[in-house]
Amino acid sequence: MIVNMSEKATEQEINHVIERIREAGYQPHVTRGTERTIVAAVGSGRRHEIEALQVAPGVDNVVAIAQPFKLVSRQVKPERSVIKINGVAIGGPEVVVIAGPCSVESREQLLETAHAVKRAGASMLRGGAYKPRTSPYDFQGLGIEALKILREAKKETGLPVVTEVMSTEDIDTICEHVDMLQIGARNMQNFALLRRLAAVNKPVLLKRGPSATVKEWLLAAEYLLSGGNHQVVLCERGIKTFETEMRNTMDLAAIALARDLSHLPVIADPSHGTGKQSLIAAVSRAAVAVGADGLIIEVHPCPERALSDGPQSLDFAGFAKVMQALAEPLRRTAGQATEVWAAS
Amino acid sequence: MIVNMSEKATEQEINHVIERIREAGYQPHVTRGTERTIVAAVGSGRRHEIEALQVAPGVDNVVAIAQPFKLVSRQVKPERSVIKINGVAIGGPEVVVIAGPCSVESREQLLETAHAVKRAGASMLRGGAYKPRTSPYDFQGLGIEALKILREAKKETGLPVVTEVMSTEDIDTICEHVDMLQIGARNMQNFALLRRLAAVNKPVLLKRGPSATVKEWLLAAEYLLSGGNHQVVLCERGIKTFETEMRNTMDLAAIALARDLSHLPVIADPSHGTGKQSLIAAVSRAAVAVGADGLIIEVHPCPERALSDGPQSLDFAGFAKVMQALAEPLRRTAGQATEVWAAS
Amino acid sequence: MIVNMSEKATEQEINHVIERIREAGYQPHVTRGTERTIVAAVGSGRRHEIEALQVAPGVDNVVAIAQPFKLVSRQVKPERSVIKINGVAIGGPEVVVIAGPCSVESREQLLETAHAVKRAGASMLRGGAYKPRTSPYDFQGLGIEALKILREAKKETGLPVVTEVMSTEDIDTICEHVDMLQIGARNMQNFALLRRLAAVNKPVLLKRGPSATVKEWLLAAEYLLSGGNHQVVLCERGIKTFETEMRNTMDLAAIALARDLSHLPVIADPSHGTGKQSLIAAVSRAAVAVGADGLIIEVHPCPERALSDGPQSLDFAGFAKVMQALAEPLRRTAGQATEVWAAS
Amino acid sequence: MIVNMSEKATEQEINHVIERIREAGYQPHVTRGTERTIVAAVGSGRRHEIEALQVAPGVDNVVAIAQPFKLVSRQVKPERSVIKINGVAIGGPEVVVIAGPCSVESREQLLETAHAVKRAGASMLRGGAYKPRTSPYDFQGLGIEALKILREAKKETGLPVVTEVMSTEDIDTICEHVDMLQIGARNMQNFALLRRLAAVNKPVLLKRGPSATVKEWLLAAEYLLSGGNHQVVLCERGIKTFETEMRNTMDLAAIALARDLSHLPVIADPSHGTGKQSLIAAVSRAAVAVGADGLIIEVHPCPERALSDGPQSLDFAGFAKVMQALAEPLRRTAGQATEVWAAS
Repeated sequence: MIVNMSEKATEQEINHVIERIREAGYQPHVTRGTERTIVAAVGSGRRHEIEALQVAPGVDNVVAIAQPFKLVSRQVKPERSVIKINGVAIGGPEVVVIAGPCSVESREQLLETAHAVKRAGASMLRGGAYKPRTSPYDFQGLGIEALKILREAKKETGLPVVTEVMSTEDIDTICEHVDMLQIGARNMQNFALLRRLAAVNKPVLLKRGPSATVKEWLLAAEYLLSGGNHQVVLCERGIKTFETEMRNTMDLAAIALARDLSHLPVIADPSHGTGKQSLIAAVSRAAVAVGADGLIIEVHPCPERALSDGPQSLDFAGFAKVMQALAEPLRRTAGQATEVWAAS
Repeated sequence: MIVNMSEKATEQEINHVIERIREAGYQPHVTRGTERTIVAAVGSGRRHEIEALQVAPGVDNVVAIAQPFKLVSRQVKPERSVIKINGVAIGGPEVVVIAGPCSVESREQLLETAHAVKRAGASMLRGGAYKPRTSPYDFQGLGIEALKILREAKKETGLPVVTEVMSTEDIDTICEHVDMLQIGARNMQNFALLRRLAAVNKPVLLKRGPSATVKEWLLAAEYLLSGGNHQVVLCERGIKTFETEMRNTMDLAAIALARDLSHLPVIADPSHGTGKQSLIAAVSRAAVAVGADGLIIEVHPCPERALSDGPQSLDFAGFAKVMQALAEPLRRTAGQATEVWAAS
Repeated sequence: MIVNMSEKATEQEINHVIERIREAGYQPHVTRGTERTIVAAVGSGRRHEIEALQVAPGVDNVVAIAQPFKLVSRQVKPERSVIKINGVAIGGPEVVVIAGPCSVESREQLLETAHAVKRAGASMLRGGAYKPRTSPYDFQGLGIEALKILREAKKETGLPVVTEVMSTEDIDTICEHVDMLQIGARNMQNFALLRRLAAVNKPVLLKRGPSATVKEWLLAAEYLLSGGNHQVVLCERGIKTFETEMRNTMDLAAIALARDLSHLPVIADPSHGTGKQSLIAAVSRAAVAVGADGLIIEVHPCPERALSDGPQSLDFAGFAKVMQALAEPLRRTAGQATEVWAAS
Repeated sequence: MIVNMSEKATEQEINHVIERIREAGYQPHVTRGTERTIVAAVGSGRRHEIEALQVAPGVDNVVAIAQPFKLVSRQVKPERSVIKINGVAIGGPEVVVIAGPCSVESREQLLETAHAVKRAGASMLRGGAYKPRTSPYDFQGLGIEALKILREAKKETGLPVVTEVMSTEDIDTICEHVDMLQIGARNMQNFALLRRLAAVNKPVLLKRGPSATVKEWLLAAEYLLSGGNHQVVLCERGIKTFETEMRNTMDLAAIALARDLSHLPVIADPSHGTGKQSLIAAVSRAAVAVGADGLIIEVHPCPERALSDGPQSLDFAGFAKVMQALAEPLRRTAGQATEVWAAS
């Protein structure tokens, strides 16, 4: 931490800062410039006490030097983590594709979809039982009934299942039925939920909040690891910007950055990231190219009849095309039509 | 809802949309333009079924006409709501000022602060017992001990108390100790929490999420009202933008807009909205001028020693100055120094 | 400037940084922590050479300590600047209101408006001759004909006139006709234009870019002052965020911040800042309360027939009401209806 | 265009809107719902007159149905455009890589770089002569001297050259020396510049503004096409968001979207898009995978000595690695280390 004194800071003010740095458990180290003095806090002490010096008299601002996360950092653990979910390994050499409907709407809908995505090459099944919906008047999920259907689909297809948990009260029930718990984007900083999931022996899929910085996202993961749960997969699902033609702005570079800063696997959600059926293939390819360890994609037997997220859901044929697109080479060559990836 | 067909839509595609609108419970109304056809869904039916038509063949996009919220709307209830909290009325003619520390740190700290803010003119006391912190290594609040101290402060000063609730599991305990429950910005779309607080007989202070649109904020309030709790006060506390000199961007116009769209009272939080001690006075004045029904301001006996939010907390003298600033006339006149409100 | 070495930096890498700091004209000052080393560049040298060290081996990142602007800074000139435009003083004790149509559309339209805004209390007249329009198919302004009409309006009413300059080629002509030149938001970083206006002996109204930080805005002003033109007035007109109910997000706190960092006067543009007629009164009041030195407001005889910016333009009666609102006291008291400022 | 009347609109207000739609050259088409009435403006008339009805009495809002751009649209020209620059075709089957330094700093620097990027496989050379710099105290480019050096480099290597034009006054000189003119991000809505470049017989590289929507970007291109210059290449270079770990947020999905909406080629600038050397390889791969027609990458003989953009410039070895990365297959397979693309 560096405390940057203002140009007009008095000796007394500088000394006050030096003392406070000592009190906080750090060693002060003073650099006197021609215009101003800076005081570094060296060693390890109580960080917030240095941060609060921002309002001490004569202080211009306080700058943090080191990253605030620890256990998720590659500085602490340079080798990449691989998270295993009933035989599926996320973070290993294979790109893992998770697919399924936004919401579980019925037994038929889910089973049909589970078989279809498996046929097309998906390794895991997704399906919402408890749905976070912006409006209280929208479909809120089938709850426990959906969990049972998910378990049946798993039995039939062998695909491990991930579903979102919205409340600490549902954790036990959900754990009985599925293989991986998802923390949704809006709950990324639901610290009560994070703390409880830190104590659960199940892998967690942690979505990035729509306005979370990469640093905040990694600190949310730090809640899980520091609480004892190291089975964490990160998921970039788009951030909120001024752009209105797409539901969110997919921050693909953040996938590379998160993998650079952390050893945790990172997957991409092009369905929420774009909100547009027509962009899923192109963005899925890009996510894999940027280094994503996997993809999570919404698929529905008939998107225009979906109870939620229809506009961004693929039908079975559309999903099969995306899977094919992932097998194509990176560079388009002379023979290929150029429009291929810019939607259909 | 309006379904906008693409220029190349076939008769068959148009007919499909017309049928689906009927199935969804609406009456279709077709307008054929020179270039394209639009189909309006008239009446009231299942909204999401029209939204999902966005991916039906031949459809360009679907446009919502009416606002999605109901009970919070001024169209439903034109007269303004006044929320009463143990004798304090938010939404009435008085601008209500809530003040206190970010976190309750000790009995002494809170009692001293409670007396100081009361002396300066505050009508309610704030103080965090359960703290949402970006990092798991930061101070997480004193929990139930803090609740007891808050109750004592209320007894001593007579100031009603508001504190944040982070988890459904804490609701009962918190309700025993305080007068108003706050839903923090990061929990604005914690729908499990919203649903549970909808069933509680206590007023709720609902902060706007850092990346929530005004519409999403009002829909979060709709969860509370539609669940039975009409005692809701909205709070604008700054949104996340590209600006880095301030912690957030205070969206003051949103206060006027929210009061225009909804009958619920709206207060402002200039402490989180700016993150800067030096801007609190100016922004508090602006919030009142724009129509805010109240303010919530962080005050600490010694901000540079605060366990959280020090840089944006006022000391007692600073808070007293803010209260004075609220009594000054709107326009600066000839005799006044011009720098007065641009920080001290 | 502080160069923050990575934890794994070798002695050789640290020595390389030390040498480069010397080469760049600074004195290096080394602080060795328990985990990492930081090297401060003390004195004044070639800043960019330190910035570029970010990619030197063993360097984690480079942090700037001092603000990059000079002449606009209150550290250089603590007393506030007052800009005089033909008898009108911006930055003095009076709040200056500039009003007029978005575009000059005809002689009648402008003269009628000029008289109306003068009657209501405006001190200056605005009117666009050259219009920056998002679409090439929109009305692009009357050009030189508009300039002549503006000059006539000034003669008739005595109100000094401000108009936007979009191209260096128009500067001479515009200077002959008006009293103040506006740099529009989209041209805030049109450095060719800034450099040419730095050499002109006319006051300049510099709008903040829709995605410019306060720092970038002040650096744009620095182009003008460092080139010799000290007659600069800043104007906050809203920034682009995710919110869609308003045209822009009015960053009112930035007015207080800019006045804190710089001695230049700062005015507010609630018309562009909100894009909504119904919010102008409330936001104008807030701007004055936050410390703005003036306001610039769009007024049109018949907004629904305006060739540009109709939705955010006030008619004459609406503008008169805004002027009244500015004279009301800050706090609403018991007798007042509470809805007054949240639109009409 | 659809005019959406408020629920309380009177017959008189509805009739007024109907008349105004007729006056504006459209045919009105009325749909009466159970709660409200909407009036569609059918045919083609004066668009802005309908937009301005937003403030007519009884009107809730006005919704545009069709996209506002024409000549750039794939609805007007479904086949993709290929732009030829002295033998290099952008928009064809080959991914075109443009490389070179941010600024031309000296003859040696540029020639050395030109040869190096050619060796590694680049097809065009970039180099700034006139630099848009946030601060007036930063290096502003060598101007005409740089243009001569660029011409020499082209002669030596055969690589066509692109450079940025910042002012209408420089256009003629620049046209004599280079093959393609770049409109920088900050000038995307410099309409004076756009109008002048519309009349020039040279291809134009149009960067997306840091806060421009895709729609605004395409409308900026529409200025060029509607003015007669159809040789336009679009370039996504990152947008401004709340994220601070990267210089900008690379909006890769916007490349797919722009190629979906428009027939113009779209390239990517990962250097500005990320601001981080370590992310260029990964993001370049992703850009190609998402469908980009090319890349523009900053390369410098010694980034830590660059006069501008050092932190995001690659050295020769780094650039060669990026070119190799583009030749690798899309999916990582078992044998490959997983960290490969998440920086080096």
